[in-house]
Amino acid sequence: MEKIIDPYSADLPEDYSRMIKDFGLEEFNLDMFPDPNRIMRRNVVFAGRDLGIISKCIKEKKKFYVLSGIMPSGERIHFGNKLVVENIRYFQEHGAKAYILVADLESAAARGVSIEEAKQRALEFHIPAYIALGLDPKKTVFYFQSENKDVIHLAYEFSKKITLNEFRAIYGNADPGRIMSAVTQVGDILYPQIEERMPGIIPVGIDQDPHIRLTRDIVARTKSKYNFFAPSALYHKYTPSLDGSMKMSKSKPESCIELPEDTKHVCKKLKRALTGGRDSLEEQKRLGGTPEKCMIYELYRSHLMEDDDELNKTYHDCRKGTLLCGHDKEICCKKMEEFMEKFQKDLEKARKHVDKLNFVKFK
Amino acid sequence: MEKIIDPYSADLPEDYSRMIKDFGLEEFNLDMFPDPNRIMRRNVVFAGRDLGIISKCIKEKKKFYVLSGIMPSGERIHFGNKLVVENIRYFQEHGAKAYILVADLESAAARGVSIEEAKQRALEFHIPAYIALGLDPKKTVFYFQSENKDVIHLAYEFSKKITLNEFRAIYGNADPGRIMSAVTQVGDILYPQIEERMPGIIPVGIDQDPHIRLTRDIVARTKSKYNFFAPSALYHKYTPSLDGSMKMSKSKPESCIELPEDTKHVCKKLKRALTGGRDSLEEQKRLGGTPEKCMIYELYRSHLMEDDDELNKTYHDCRKGTLLCGHDKEICCKKMEEFMEKFQKDLEKARKHVDKLNFVKFK
Repeated sequence: MEKIIDPYSADLPEDYSRMIKDFGLEEFNLDMFPDPNRIMRRNVVFAGRDLGIISKCIKEKKKFYVLSGIMPSGERIHFGNKLVVENIRYFQEHGAKAYILVADLESAAARGVSIEEAKQRALEFHIPAYIALGLDPKKTVFYFQSENKDVIHLAYEFSKKITLNEFRAIYGNADPGRIMSAVTQVGDILYPQIEERMPGIIPVGIDQDPHIRLTRDIVARTKSKYNFFAPSALYHKYTPSLDGSMKMSKSKPESCIELPEDTKHVCKKLKRALTGGRDSLEEQKRLGGTPEKCMIYELYRSHLMEDDDELNKTYHDCRKGTLLCGHDKEICCKKMEEFMEKFQKDLEKARKHVDKLNFVKFK
Repeated sequence: MEKIIDPYSADLPEDYSRMIKDFGLEEFNLDMFPDPNRIMRRNVVFAGRDLGIISKCIKEKKKFYVLSGIMPSGERIHFGNKLVVENIRYFQEHGAKAYILVADLESAAARGVSIEEAKQRALEFHIPAYIALGLDPKKTVFYFQSENKDVIHLAYEFSKKITLNEFRAIYGNADPGRIMSAVTQVGDILYPQIEERMPGIIPVGIDQDPHIRLTRDIVARTKSKYNFFAPSALYHKYTPSLDGSMKMSKSKPESCIELPEDTKHVCKKLKRALTGGRDSLEEQKRLGGTPEKCMIYELYRSHLMEDDDELNKTYHDCRKGTLLCGHDKEICCKKMEEFMEKFQKDLEKARKHVDKLNFVKFK
């Protein structure tokens, strides 16, 4: 593949460079992992912690795990969840034992959605949606926090290992429900090592780093009893808001795409999305567009354009001024339609098989 | 029975009157409960909350429950635990369904004693000790917090119902382990109503009132979902320290008696205990002693003298100056020896039957 820097936004925006520095992260480096997936190749994945040990596990075919959680308090998911699933899938295909937990205790403690309601939502929507996004259900261990005694016991034990002030320094908000959620997440992250001690990697959005830091602190504080491996982490960038701001958020529904969402609505939003176009058609034809600033291009790069050659061509056509914004938005709308249709179809299919999944039961 | 006020310390010391006022408690009143037990008759039990509904349950033979917890982090127990057992026994004999929980999650979260260690200690010592103190094992439901899914689920749900500031206002200390312990206790207190909605009473030392208040707040805040009865509570006074201060505490071992404790050590401590004696023998014979101020008499009243007539006689003999402190301490030492011997014997006996108890299992 021709090395083209720009189409993949390899130059890290200042916000992300600062995060790497402020939180002491490692910059992600393509050489670490064989056959990197689309979002690794395209610098959507941008940083990590302790990636070397996972790289070694993959290359030397040693045991390791990958884990992620589903928060079933909402009724839909978003493109960030899709990125997580793609990374889980990657590690799963490279030898990791995969765990997906349903954060039903957290849902009750931090969001006020009851455990029963959270369980039901997860079974009806979130788990099938993760499968529709590419998770291999046959190779995945699923569990509900509320049914995992080991996780709960770890959470209680870990709560003694951190003070209120430390908690506040990490999280800001230290309401009781938040505290219980956080120590339970730490229990989740380390739970696979209760079954078998091994390295593990947690692919998350960068906003989830506090949980990783808390977990790494607690690993150090429980070393004499458990001697856990500190979890590695792999961070992806936020999916930017359609108006160009850093993070897509439900609080700005006109700039946010949920999964699933009616494509007519989505295409309307895409029409209003920020692009890298010029002030006039004449100018754009002459000078070309700026795909680096374009939210449509961002959607292609992160989500909608699987083929690198197609992405490269789109990038250069925009640059040359031959691909103009109006037409490009029509293309994007069509791709989004295809994506949503496939997602809905796969979701329906996955729903039918939820009862056959491999759930951890209380012992 | 002749109504004699003094032997039973019916005049409430100022500290306790203030608690009643400050915390909005009901003063305990002998007419409420039929056949009051020794510590009710003798005003060791001094206050409560919502006692009317329990009184009604007893008199009208309606269902209610009594619940208490064992904190197995320590290696011994104290006279306060004995008072709790006596009150549980009382309600058990008057129609209550009795629950005893082992606070093994709390032990890990608040004391740093692991769940496994806590469980083992409870089975080897605390549960048999409660039985040795008079709990009827055949009529009691036992459970470990760590094995009671319903309690855990309630704890997580309740954590959303209280803010950090509210928690701090009730407890002072709001470290994560304390928070998790407290919401888990609330889960314990209400758990019997998950099985069957009914009034319940929690007999505790007055220092445990914060848990009762938190529980009652949470009952109000979850009314639409659960409609729990707010728990009633029955408060007993502290067992005073042998030096006369308000509360026996391990932090002053020379003024504290643990269960079990070697009686030689105990008798040495009794010899140094504060009494209501006079400055000289002559004066005491002439004026008599002041049993109200005497820690030996306090032990008789609360713990060591079952028979009311014997207690009355002791009181009056002291008052008249015919029972002097030296001799009285010998009597007390002998009674303590008998008590400890019986306790040890009953403890050994109870240990042999622990595996046959009725434990709640995970469903």
